[in-house]
Amino acid sequence: MTVGICLVGAGRIGAIHADNIAAAANARLVHVVDADAAAAEQLAQRHGASATELRLALDDSSVAAVLIASSTDTHVELMDAASAAGKAIFCEKPLDLDLARARQCLQTLEARGTLLALGFNRRFDPDFACLWQRVQDGEIGDVEMVSITSRDPGPPPLDYLRRSGGLFMDMMIHDFDMARWLLGEDPKTLFASASCLVDPAIASVGDIDSALVTLQTASGKLCQISNSRRAVYGYDQRIEVHGSHGMLRAENRGASQVQCFRAGSVASDPPLDFFLERYAAAYRLELQAFVAALTGEPARLVSGSDALKAQVLADAATRSHRKNAVISLDYQGPAAP
Amino acid sequence: MTVGICLVGAGRIGAIHADNIAAAANARLVHVVDADAAAAEQLAQRHGASATELRLALDDSSVAAVLIASSTDTHVELMDAASAAGKAIFCEKPLDLDLARARQCLQTLEARGTLLALGFNRRFDPDFACLWQRVQDGEIGDVEMVSITSRDPGPPPLDYLRRSGGLFMDMMIHDFDMARWLLGEDPKTLFASASCLVDPAIASVGDIDSALVTLQTASGKLCQISNSRRAVYGYDQRIEVHGSHGMLRAENRGASQVQCFRAGSVASDPPLDFFLERYAAAYRLELQAFVAALTGEPARLVSGSDALKAQVLADAATRSHRKNAVISLDYQGPAAP
Amino acid sequence: MTVGICLVGAGRIGAIHADNIAAAANARLVHVVDADAAAAEQLAQRHGASATELRLALDDSSVAAVLIASSTDTHVELMDAASAAGKAIFCEKPLDLDLARARQCLQTLEARGTLLALGFNRRFDPDFACLWQRVQDGEIGDVEMVSITSRDPGPPPLDYLRRSGGLFMDMMIHDFDMARWLLGEDPKTLFASASCLVDPAIASVGDIDSALVTLQTASGKLCQISNSRRAVYGYDQRIEVHGSHGMLRAENRGASQVQCFRAGSVASDPPLDFFLERYAAAYRLELQAFVAALTGEPARLVSGSDALKAQVLADAATRSHRKNAVISLDYQGPAAP
Amino acid sequence: MTVGICLVGAGRIGAIHADNIAAAANARLVHVVDADAAAAEQLAQRHGASATELRLALDDSSVAAVLIASSTDTHVELMDAASAAGKAIFCEKPLDLDLARARQCLQTLEARGTLLALGFNRRFDPDFACLWQRVQDGEIGDVEMVSITSRDPGPPPLDYLRRSGGLFMDMMIHDFDMARWLLGEDPKTLFASASCLVDPAIASVGDIDSALVTLQTASGKLCQISNSRRAVYGYDQRIEVHGSHGMLRAENRGASQVQCFRAGSVASDPPLDFFLERYAAAYRLELQAFVAALTGEPARLVSGSDALKAQVLADAATRSHRKNAVISLDYQGPAAP
Repeated sequence: MTVGICLVGAGRIGAIHADNIAAAANARLVHVVDADAAAAEQLAQRHGASATELRLALDDSSVAAVLIASSTDTHVELMDAASAAGKAIFCEKPLDLDLARARQCLQTLEARGTLLALGFNRRFDPDFACLWQRVQDGEIGDVEMVSITSRDPGPPPLDYLRRSGGLFMDMMIHDFDMARWLLGEDPKTLFASASCLVDPAIASVGDIDSALVTLQTASGKLCQISNSRRAVYGYDQRIEVHGSHGMLRAENRGASQVQCFRAGSVASDPPLDFFLERYAAAYRLELQAFVAALTGEPARLVSGSDALKAQVLADAATRSHRKNAVISLDYQGPAAP
Repeated sequence: MTVGICLVGAGRIGAIHADNIAAAANARLVHVVDADAAAAEQLAQRHGASATELRLALDDSSVAAVLIASSTDTHVELMDAASAAGKAIFCEKPLDLDLARARQCLQTLEARGTLLALGFNRRFDPDFACLWQRVQDGEIGDVEMVSITSRDPGPPPLDYLRRSGGLFMDMMIHDFDMARWLLGEDPKTLFASASCLVDPAIASVGDIDSALVTLQTASGKLCQISNSRRAVYGYDQRIEVHGSHGMLRAENRGASQVQCFRAGSVASDPPLDFFLERYAAAYRLELQAFVAALTGEPARLVSGSDALKAQVLADAATRSHRKNAVISLDYQGPAAP
Repeated sequence: MTVGICLVGAGRIGAIHADNIAAAANARLVHVVDADAAAAEQLAQRHGASATELRLALDDSSVAAVLIASSTDTHVELMDAASAAGKAIFCEKPLDLDLARARQCLQTLEARGTLLALGFNRRFDPDFACLWQRVQDGEIGDVEMVSITSRDPGPPPLDYLRRSGGLFMDMMIHDFDMARWLLGEDPKTLFASASCLVDPAIASVGDIDSALVTLQTASGKLCQISNSRRAVYGYDQRIEVHGSHGMLRAENRGASQVQCFRAGSVASDPPLDFFLERYAAAYRLELQAFVAALTGEPARLVSGSDALKAQVLADAATRSHRKNAVISLDYQGPAAP
Repeated sequence: MTVGICLVGAGRIGAIHADNIAAAANARLVHVVDADAAAAEQLAQRHGASATELRLALDDSSVAAVLIASSTDTHVELMDAASAAGKAIFCEKPLDLDLARARQCLQTLEARGTLLALGFNRRFDPDFACLWQRVQDGEIGDVEMVSITSRDPGPPPLDYLRRSGGLFMDMMIHDFDMARWLLGEDPKTLFASASCLVDPAIASVGDIDSALVTLQTASGKLCQISNSRRAVYGYDQRIEVHGSHGMLRAENRGASQVQCFRAGSVASDPPLDFFLERYAAAYRLELQAFVAALTGEPARLVSGSDALKAQVLADAATRSHRKNAVISLDYQGPAAP
């Protein structure tokens, strides 16, 4: 069984997904939709697909699913249209910068019974997935503390930052998802402390570039997350989980296993410094999991509820930082102003 | 020049100091003072010193300095007496569980011009000292974030915990000192989140066993500290410092460099699991620094002010945890109730 | 420009090459040739190629190159036929178990101007290629010593061993190629010491399973190679190069970067234990290099002369072991009996 | 019980032993003997001992043992005199550059029942001792191969080399002892390949600076040893033991556990680069073992026979290199010319 997929968004991430659809054994890229017709055409051609208008693509009965990799402000509308057309949906995070809107969209999809998977790709990173599995297998007993380090090699362009929703929504949202996944329990309180240390221009657009967040669950489990928009030594992505019987930790991967011993120091490779390289396998495996689910096989997906909760945390962190106060988390209600 | 030293406290830490005094090139253990006369006698004999009453020891003009390694509640009184007798002082941390009392004692000593060094031994750990020096040398540019992991192999006896002042004062106080030392700037706000996860009996004596603290300085530097009374894999003592040009990190040391490759896994040695073993060099080097200062050589010591500030942080963390609120730090004023 | 390739041999290695041809941007798998028609058909179908008889495939003008992945005893005949048909050739090692026959074949191909590349895939392993490049870049000055460790997870079936040419020809031949490549100079003398330690059945078919070889070049450079048919902890593939200014070493890769700290030990992943997994990138990159050469781009290939010299070393090692004597290497003359 | 020790040789190694005797719980340095009276006097004073003439020291009944750390050419005579005086002996390696003389001396000592321990300190290095113990404990099953890497930071002065007996006798002799210890069986054949690559001046005094040796035992166990007089990155001392169930390896130790992550590379500390620092614990522990044996406690010592066999191997390696031939080892007979 081969499932036809319509990709919306022919940008950098869209291209990654297109490659992975093409490489998947039982999936086929049918349409590429993008406001930039030339980009859609180019990406479609590379994989023998068609550059199509959304409406026509949704009408195509050979399309089983829509993969949404367009800009965040289009997600809700696209999910609604795809769902209405009876398609399954894979959507990049976040759902929407507006929590209430995101919530409502999820309710609509749920009512229609739409299969939805969110692009929190780190759950599919082989190292993090291995770590998670070993936690589930009880290797370290009961989870007590989670420590997540996530540092970008350098800040994105200011123009991107202006539309990003801020560090907590754009960057740490991934770590919030990791935190919930590894804690196995929703945080109850959150405190965020943040600064602009990398580049004053980031402050000028109202964002921060360095942040620490502390989470605590109802049973007392603790989690700390550290983010920075700067790590000159590469893309620093590490996780530690402490349990009653030990610690599991996932360290970074370098480009090679070659070490150079010279007078004064031993040099080894720094972490891979580009997220597409670091998470190449994760992107491939999340697409495979989605395709597996489409074909009725068992697969772990990231649900709309998972995505919503990560956003609740990101939203709370933004408020905690602004108020310099501890936030009690409410996953049901509307986001406080 | 050889300086005579009177040791007060013949317990476990006192014995370490006695050994290090004996091994130091230009120091001599003259007296051992302890309410437990047998203990004093035994330790004194081992090093050719005398078990002496405090009053007589302080009257001995061959004694240049008093090393205080007795229980915390005796520190202030002993410092006052030693200072009044014109002796230099090396005192184990903390100064006193009561901040106001500690402050007053320091003022008295300062007025008398007493040379005072506090036993924050981690500044003398070769790995941490190396890390600190390399930060000072500018290897990673401006410091932005500090991350300190400090986990005990297992909890101390309940009886000890009852008198300890709590995890923040007894255990994390070391990390607070590390934080200030490495940040190069005093924290301005603090938030502590803590739980009792290791043993409910710890909660029964009013303490916690797992804690995360976030610090922020006026210039926006951030620091996270993670503490647990349980690390079944050994005594986990690690520090990371992130700067504008890179990261320096100090990992744990294992007992050996031997690795065993067998079917399924590669096993290496866990961290050394006893603080006296892990910090053996630190105890030796802090004593040598104190002796150097006594003989007029340049030496980095941990000052009374350093010790007081670490306590202010520990005190604030205790309050932050209890109130579940962010604390604005005041290093001058009295501790809030 | 897309080059058409005919694959001879639809076995395990043939399938790897077929996948890599299919994935290469400018290559196309046109024919699959195998005495086992069903195997040929199945592999051909998977990649949209045809299962074809050799004669017809060689007559096909759309075929630019023949990739030989059939059993060793067919290599010479196939190379001769492909060369006569004007095709370029990629051939798995070894050329032929008989050195004289291999030499003559190479002379024929050379006379015809045939482009020939041999499948010594380790030169394309990213870690080893990185190490080699850094040696060329002068990072460690002049090369003085090379140390190669190469251990299989377990011995192959006896039936395979009977036809393999023995450990030196079947297994260490890869290391001989690495040795010449890294030394940058041909060895002048060789000594081999070997035993049967893993399984007496291996001795019963006249082979050994554990071997050490020492090589020395005319300028005095030294190389040691260690082989075993047993490494229960995985497929152990490591190289060290010592030079006048330092050492470069390539360590193994584990399946993940996850470490588990528990009471008594820290466990990390053992080396990947299957050669197809360990050298997946090497197989892909050697195919890409061959395709690049076919399309006129610059590419480093392993020449017929390289392959011949590796065989001369393997042959000499076999004799050295049997005679328990040092062998003076002669790359031109016939192999001694 | 405290044993009195007479130290012969007040040079660099003698000073190390003097310190360790002073630090040992149940030993006392009584006399220091050295042709250089000033050196003897200075070392004796440091530890409250007397600078004494050999004759008088041997007559002193408070002396239980003589520690010989003088130049190699004095060893046999000193051992004979100490033995005749009824003293136990700890002697630095080698026994004597002349094998026949060494053999005869051992026979004499054995006839007199003299307790003799040789200074092959690496057996007492904590890492190597740990590795050895774990081999004995069966962690990796039956030993199959041993790989020893031993590289000096830089060559010693030519003047030293002239009197050293050559690389095999002066440097690799330690590795020969390690090889026998870890193989648990005496080698039966040896092949040595060596060059002068570090400094032509070393060749001018008839020595080599780079060497590989292969050993094989009667049961087929294999061992490779790699030596160089140059390792600009530090003192490189590593051992791997491969067994039927896995591998144990001992890596080098760096000065600190601090790693620096910067753009382009991660730098960690190179191996400790001075043998006295690298083997400080080994020197201390071998002395403690000797003192334990003197006081009747169980202790593993390195016997005269062990030392003799290491010399037989060093002697055979010298001949193997000169003849470029495999040597059959004979531990009983006279050394071939």
